Amino acid sequence: MKNAKISNAVIKRLPRYRRYLIELRKKGVEKISSKEFSNLIGYTASQIRQDLNNFGGFGQQGYGYSVDGLYQEISAILGLDKEYRMVIMGAGNLGQAIAKYTHFHKQGFKVYGVFEVKQDLIGQKLAGIEIMDYEDIVEFVEEEAIDIGIICVSQENAQEVADRLCFAGVKGIWNFAPIDIEVPKHVALENVHLSDSLHSLAYHMNDIQKREQLNKEKEKEETN
Amino acid sequence: MKNAKISNAVIKRLPRYRRYLIELRKKGVEKISSKEFSNLIGYTASQIRQDLNNFGGFGQQGYGYSVDGLYQEISAILGLDKEYRMVIMGAGNLGQAIAKYTHFHKQGFKVYGVFEVKQDLIGQKLAGIEIMDYEDIVEFVEEEAIDIGIICVSQENAQEVADRLCFAGVKGIWNFAPIDIEVPKHVALENVHLSDSLHSLAYHMNDIQKREQLNKEKEKEETN
Repeated sequence: MKNAKISNAVIKRLPRYRRYLIELRKKGVEKISSKEFSNLIGYTASQIRQDLNNFGGFGQQGYGYSVDGLYQEISAILGLDKEYRMVIMGAGNLGQAIAKYTHFHKQGFKVYGVFEVKQDLIGQKLAGIEIMDYEDIVEFVEEEAIDIGIICVSQENAQEVADRLCFAGVKGIWNFAPIDIEVPKHVALENVHLSDSLHSLAYHMNDIQKREQLNKEKEKEETN
Repeated sequence: MKNAKISNAVIKRLPRYRRYLIELRKKGVEKISSKEFSNLIGYTASQIRQDLNNFGGFGQQGYGYSVDGLYQEISAILGLDKEYRMVIMGAGNLGQAIAKYTHFHKQGFKVYGVFEVKQDLIGQKLAGIEIMDYEDIVEFVEEEAIDIGIICVSQENAQEVADRLCFAGVKGIWNFAPIDIEVPKHVALENVHLSDSLHSLAYHMNDIQKREQLNKEKEKEETN
């Protein structure tokens, strides 16, 4: 693997490549050319070659990519060849859903605790995971060597919770609060801004409608 | 508003601008220059001017942007000045969490029904919303003039559910299944690929660690 900084755009595409490779593996496909991959995934063949070239390139001229080889390599690049220990901050609806969602667990991302300030929730269990007192988070992260903190608290409390997680020593923050939080340079941050995504959807729905309306008006003018 | 096609990158930034404008409004700020906005949001001032120029530009030389004016305009551009009627497909953990999440509701995105195939769930209620039989989805979308279908089913069933929603006449699909689904051109699609986001986080965590390791080795070499 090359040491040059890889652009965020490429990194963002790697999980998608990996998803398609999993499907190909399931279907028993062993080799794939950049052209075939292009038809499947929707990026151009040259884009695919360029992306994968960032990591030294796995393809062989006239042979294509080994599906399993590429899957293993991308998994390793993403760091999915190991396990991650996570905590969920906030036992509200979103925190509960993530605690119960087994998909991440299967991929090696395991939840070891849920933390709450609400005293009536502390001590209960969520999908077998104990809900603990927010006051105990720093100790827990240290003792259990937690890698990732998932922020499922309100936007008002998100930054304070992030600060405490970083102080406790997590290496990554997965933020679901609808706010841009700040973390020190040595901590990775990934936001899931659900409202932003919904607003983009609204924009595109309206954009399609406007275009359809314009086309109809044009057709009318042309008929007249 | 200009009619030229606005790039997806700009659209993606609009909800973020809007979030910061909401915060500024809350604080009673009435005007903001592109430079002040830049310090706050982290984009360059020229990027901000360029982005907002896509929509005709709202700033006045030497005056800055009107916070409320800009908020209203961006909201209108995104189509957030109206209400959207939604259904949730799948009453699993994720579907339940979204049904219970009131944040979208407050923003004018309202859930009118949850649809399931599991007979024991049908007829129950989720946050006051009825869980209905998947077999009745087409009729419901037509009669209730549903705009958006939210896909919270497994990846195996996601495409079939999307096909049926599009056939029924939704204008937008918000997909949470970890798979790329296909929709007709006249339907807007927005994906929330949670696993992809988690995998990006894993990459960045490992990348930071690698860089720290390299720096330490360099320092060692230099000391020797």
